[in-house]
Amino acid sequence: MRRTIVATTLLAVTGLAHAAEPIQVIEPATITNPEMVELGKKLFFEPRLSKSGFLSCNSCHNLSLGGVDILPTSIGHNWQEGPINAPTVLNAKYMLAQFWDGRAATLQEQAAGPIANPKEMALEHELALDVLRAIPGYQAEFSEVFGDKGITLDTVTEAIATFEETLVTPNSRFDQYLNGDKEALSTAEQEGYALFKSKGCAACHNGPAVGGTMYQKMGLMQPFVTSNPAQGRVDVTGKEHDRMVFKVPTLRNIELTYPYFHDGSTYDLKEAVIVMQRVQLGQELTDQEADRITDFLKTLTGEQPQITLPILPPSVAGTPKPQPFAK
Amino acid sequence: MRRTIVATTLLAVTGLAHAAEPIQVIEPATITNPEMVELGKKLFFEPRLSKSGFLSCNSCHNLSLGGVDILPTSIGHNWQEGPINAPTVLNAKYMLAQFWDGRAATLQEQAAGPIANPKEMALEHELALDVLRAIPGYQAEFSEVFGDKGITLDTVTEAIATFEETLVTPNSRFDQYLNGDKEALSTAEQEGYALFKSKGCAACHNGPAVGGTMYQKMGLMQPFVTSNPAQGRVDVTGKEHDRMVFKVPTLRNIELTYPYFHDGSTYDLKEAVIVMQRVQLGQELTDQEADRITDFLKTLTGEQPQITLPILPPSVAGTPKPQPFAK
Ligand code: HEC
Ligand code: HEC
Ligand code: HEC
Ligand code: HEC
Ligand SMILES: [Ca+2]
Ligand SMILES: [Ca+2]
Repeated sequence: MRRTIVATTLLAVTGLAHAAEPIQVIEPATITNPEMVELGKKLFFEPRLSKSGFLSCNSCHNLSLGGVDILPTSIGHNWQEGPINAPTVLNAKYMLAQFWDGRAATLQEQAAGPIANPKEMALEHELALDVLRAIPGYQAEFSEVFGDKGITLDTVTEAIATFEETLVTPNSRFDQYLNGDKEALSTAEQEGYALFKSKGCAACHNGPAVGGTMYQKMGLMQPFVTSNPAQGRVDVTGKEHDRMVFKVPTLRNIELTYPYFHDGSTYDLKEAVIVMQRVQLGQELTDQEADRITDFLKTLTGEQPQITLPILPPSVAGTPKPQPFAK
Repeated sequence: MRRTIVATTLLAVTGLAHAAEPIQVIEPATITNPEMVELGKKLFFEPRLSKSGFLSCNSCHNLSLGGVDILPTSIGHNWQEGPINAPTVLNAKYMLAQFWDGRAATLQEQAAGPIANPKEMALEHELALDVLRAIPGYQAEFSEVFGDKGITLDTVTEAIATFEETLVTPNSRFDQYLNGDKEALSTAEQEGYALFKSKGCAACHNGPAVGGTMYQKMGLMQPFVTSNPAQGRVDVTGKEHDRMVFKVPTLRNIELTYPYFHDGSTYDLKEAVIVMQRVQLGQELTDQEADRITDFLKTLTGEQPQITLPILPPSVAGTPKPQPFAK
C-alpha cells in the first residue's frame, strides 16, 4: 500500500519511531542583548524602510494578528497583489530555513529581501540606508548598539533578526500538557493529539514549532489543486523532484494564522486538516476525527509576545522623503 | 495698519490679553473605564474594520509616529490618494471639533467616518458590524463592556473615542517649564517662546494643545498657494467667509507630525514657521527668529502614550472575509 511506504519513509527520515514525543516545548526568549532587540523592534515597525513610507514588516507580519496579515496573499507597494501567503514571524527562529521554499538560510539573510522587493516594500537597499542615516535618532542608536559599524545592510538585518528571535510563543496549553499538566487539555483535545500522531501528521509537523523541520511535497498522495503559480523548492534547487515541495509550516498559533496553505485558499482550519489528510496521507478523516484534530491544533496557541509599540525617531528636513504615489 | 487690526481682533476673540500664559499644561490621562479603553485600543488597531482587512486607524494615525502617517496625503483602500493631510490623534480630545473643517463635533462622531469612507477603510458600517459580530472574542468583550447594547456603531465608536481620549502627551519640556522648572528650556528655546507670543502666533495657537481652540483663515494676510482643492469650513457652513478657513491645528508634538499644513506641502518645520508668519501675520521673520521659534516648537514633544500592542481575537470560519483586491 502506498500509504504504508510513505509513512515508513517519513518515520525513517525523522527518526520519530524513537522519539518520546514528536513535539517539544517552546522555551521563553532569553534576551542577551536588549538594546539590539529594541533597535530591531523599531526597524520591524519602520515604514520608512519602504518606498511609500507606509509599509513596515509589521504591515504583513502583524504582531496583533499572530504575525500574519490574515490575507490570502499580501498587499505590497502600490497595492500590488503578492504571490504567496505571508507566513508568521512567530517562532520563525525554529525554521530550518526561511520562506516557503527555504531560499534564505537565516532570519538575517531573509530580512534583506522584503525591503528591496518591488512587490513588497520596494525600496532599494542603498536608499533605505540613506533614509536611516539621515535620521539623527537612528544614527545615535546604531552607534550605541553597533559602535563603528554604523548603519549598513548587515547591521540593519542583524538587529531585525535579533528582534525576531524573541518572537516566540511559550506556555500554550499544549506546552503545559507536555510539561506534565495532563488537565491542561480536555479529553477531546487529547484525542486530537493522539490522532495527530496516529494518522501521520506528526511525521511532517514536528519539533518545537510543530513544523519547520523539513521540506515536503504538497500533494504527496493526491494532487493539490491551486491556481497559485508557486512551484516551491524547485526554484531554489533546480531539481525536478523539488517541484511543489514546500517547507512544512509551523502549526504553532495556527488558530491565528489563517488563511491556510501557501495559496491562502481556505480560512477554515478544519477544512485545512481534511485537505492535509487527503492530499498528504491519501485518506479521509471522519467528521469527528477532523474536529478532534482541529481541537488539538487550537491548543497550540501560545502566549503572544508582549510588544510595547516603539516610538520611532523623527525624520528631519534633510531626510529623504517617502514616495507614496510613485510607481 | 492691517497687522494691528488683525492682532487686536484675535486678542479680543481669545481673551488672551488677560491670560497669564496662552498655553496650558497637558494633564496625564485619568482612566476611569480601563475595559472600554482596552476594547477601543483593539478596534483602533483592527484591520478587519476595513474592506481589505489591511488598514486600521493606526495605519494612518500611527502611534509609533506621533499619531500620523508622515505622508503629505494618506494612502487609503486600493492605494487611493487621500484628499488631505492626516492630523494627529494625539491630544485630539482638546480640539473644539474634529477634522480640518470641524465637520464632526466629537471624537465619537468622527470615528464612524473613516470606516465607511470609500477612500479610507471602505467598509460599509453594516458590514463592519457583521464582521465584529462574527468574531467570538469581540462578542464576549462587547458584552462585558457594554452589556445588552452589544456590537453597534454606537458602541464601536464610543470605545474608539474612549481610547483616543487617553492619547495625551504630558510632561513635555515645555510643560515642565510651565510648571515652574525654568531650567527645562534653554535660553534659545525661551527666546523662541517669547517670539511665539510677541509675533502673534499664540493668538491662534493656544490652549493646552497649542491649537484646536478656533477656526482661522489659512492665508489671512497673504494667499496660501496650494494645488490641494480643500476649501475648509465653507463646506460645512456654506458661508463664503468660511472659504479656506481651517481648524487651527495643534502644535503639540509638531516635531513628529510632519509634513505640515492641510496639503502636507512641507516636511521642514522651520519653513512652516516662516510660511505662517508670512501668510497669517503678513511679516517676515529673520532667519534667527525662525530658528528660535522652531527650537521652542520642538520642546512641545511630550511623553508618547505607552501602548502595549493589542492581541486581536481571531476570526473563525464563518467570519466575513476581507476583500483586499475588490475595487
Ligand atoms: C508586503 C508584505 C510583506 C512585507 C512588507 C514583509 N513581508 Fe515577510 N513575508 C511576506 C511573504 C508573502 C512571505 C513569504 C514569501 C515566500 O515564502 O516566498 C514572507 C516571508 C517572511 C519570513 C519567512 C517566514 C517563514 O517561515 O518562512 C520572514 C521571517 C519574514 N517574512 C520577515 C519579514 C521582515 C523582517 C520584514 C521587513 C523587513 C518583512 N517580512 C516584510 C510578506 C511580507
Ligand atoms: C507529507 C508531509 C505532511 C503531512 C503528512 C502532513 N502535512 Fe500538513 N503540511 C505539509 C506541508 C508541506 C504544508 C504546506 C503546504 C502548502 O501550503 O503548500 C502543510 C500545511 C498544513 C497546514 C496549513 C498550515 C498553514 O499555516 O498554512 C495545516 C493546518 C496542516 N498542514 C495540518 C496537518 C495535519 C492535521 C496533518 C495530518 C492530518 C498534516 N498536516 C499532515 C506537510 C504535511
Ligand atoms: C486612510 C487613512 C486614514 C484612516 C484609515 C483613518 N484616518 Fe483618521 N484621518 C485621516 C485624514 C486624512 C483625516 C483628515 C480628514 C479631514 O480633516 O477632512 C483624519 C482625521 C481624523 C481625526 C480628526 C483629528 C483632528 O484633529 O481633526 C481623528 C480623531 C481621526 N482621524 C481618527 C481616526 C480613527 C479613529 C480611525 C479609524 C476608525 C481613522 N482615523 C482612520 C486619515 C485616516
Ligand atoms: C490667524 C491665525 C494663525 C496665526 C496668527 C498663526 N497660525 Fe499657524 N496655523 C493656523 C492655521 C489655520 C493653520 C492650518 C493651516 C493649513 O494647514 O491650512 C496653521 C498651521 C500651522 C503649522 C502647521 C501645523 C501642522 O500640523 O500642519 C505650524 C507649524 C504653525 N501653524 C505655526 C505657527 C507659528 C510659528 C505662527 C507664528 C509665526 C503661527 N502659526 C501663526 C493659524 C494661525
Ligand atoms: Ca497563513
Ligand atoms: Ca501633518
